[in-house]
Amino acid sequence: MKRQIDKKSLIFGRHPVLDAIKSGTPFDKLILQKGTRGELEKELRHLSKKHNIPLQYVPKERLGSITSGNHQGIIGFLSLINYYKIEDVLPMIYEKSETPLILILDGVTDVRNFGAIARSAEVCGAHAIVIPQKGAAQVNADSIKTSAGALTKIPICREGSLINTIEFLQLSGIHVVASDLRGEKLLPKVDFSLPTALVVGSEWDGVSKAVLQKVNERFIIPQVGTTDSFNVSVAAGIMMYEVVRQRSELC
Amino acid sequence: MKRQIDKKSLIFGRHPVLDAIKSGTPFDKLILQKGTRGELEKELRHLSKKHNIPLQYVPKERLGSITSGNHQGIIGFLSLINYYKIEDVLPMIYEKSETPLILILDGVTDVRNFGAIARSAEVCGAHAIVIPQKGAAQVNADSIKTSAGALTKIPICREGSLINTIEFLQLSGIHVVASDLRGEKLLPKVDFSLPTALVVGSEWDGVSKAVLQKVNERFIIPQVGTTDSFNVSVAAGIMMYEVVRQRSELC
Repeated sequence: MKRQIDKKSLIFGRHPVLDAIKSGTPFDKLILQKGTRGELEKELRHLSKKHNIPLQYVPKERLGSITSGNHQGIIGFLSLINYYKIEDVLPMIYEKSETPLILILDGVTDVRNFGAIARSAEVCGAHAIVIPQKGAAQVNADSIKTSAGALTKIPICREGSLINTIEFLQLSGIHVVASDLRGEKLLPKVDFSLPTALVVGSEWDGVSKAVLQKVNERFIIPQVGTTDSFNVSVAAGIMMYEVVRQRSELC
Repeated sequence: MKRQIDKKSLIFGRHPVLDAIKSGTPFDKLILQKGTRGELEKELRHLSKKHNIPLQYVPKERLGSITSGNHQGIIGFLSLINYYKIEDVLPMIYEKSETPLILILDGVTDVRNFGAIARSAEVCGAHAIVIPQKGAAQVNADSIKTSAGALTKIPICREGSLINTIEFLQLSGIHVVASDLRGEKLLPKVDFSLPTALVVGSEWDGVSKAVLQKVNERFIIPQVGTTDSFNVSVAAGIMMYEVVRQRSELC
């Protein structure tokens, strides 16, 4: 089934796209015709990296199937929200004298789960949600609706490498913890009075191995029954509730 | 849009339906032709009440649109699970020397939410889920899938009146508590060492007024942000987690 693309959500052509990126227009992604070389390709690579915009190389036919306009080998998909950088968000939290609570979504791909998690994050006062550039549910009309608007209120950071992000957070004094069915600690025993980043894994595979090796602690949500585990949005809600519960007892 | 009905999920005709009910076959509901009088109607009313099966009166055309067979004014929709009665479930819990945890769903209508709640209930070791006969999401292929099979493992009690059920539970020594945004107590302050029934409200209106007036305590889940509240399946998961957390600390 061909995906319906709203023409209003596109910018195409060399100068229009470059100007839009430079002026800070938020993009979900850019697609560039395979085989493009020279100054344009170099500048685009540089700008997309600088602005954290995923860049894909596709065959000419793909571009033609998206727009009949004169795309000149480049199309940009506009984003519904502004993305943030975690390096910019962190100082803002400390300036407010709040104890950071950051949520990292390692491969949540269902838009309804993504929306429900963002809704809980906002309710629990999380300061930011980090998602990877690849393999993550998109911020679109569906996820924004399921989030009850939370996706437009809470800063979303789209990062090229979650490993680098975790290293940066740890160097900044953040305790990074992940839910893992083989975790050694029960969730209520994790100390959430510390500045915290919570990693939530994908619907199917949980948190990826590479990420699990990086985190400071792994925990398990206490459970009784025989069903495998909670739905990912429920699990994320429970973790954030536990943070709020512990921190409110400190007040 | 006409709902697709699987012929294998129907039983119709006077004797086949009556025999099936008497032999304990589980039904989602029975539909009876409007204006039916006499012994059949009387017996059906009696049996449907005894077996907790919703009975609806519909025009003749409705029956004809569901099956071209000789329905004789009555069609039964088979259920995918066996329903329980709360009066039968409660003694079974006490026999196991466990502290009861019962979940009451007051108007949860979305099948995905219903499924996710059942999944969490099973993970948290809840002993039963009570749903009302009217205005509740159905146990169907979708909700069973979302529940990861939990709906087939945990007893589901379908009750004509939640008020009567709550009164019965209270007389049986169960502490009935409900989530309510205007609740006077924070969730972690509720004493879940007591035998407990947790009431979860609908996606839109929360717990109904009549039910709120009946419960022993109302609580609020602590929150920080400005978004209205959690998704209902997340809220239910958080409540049950808090029960497990408190009870595991007692061990």
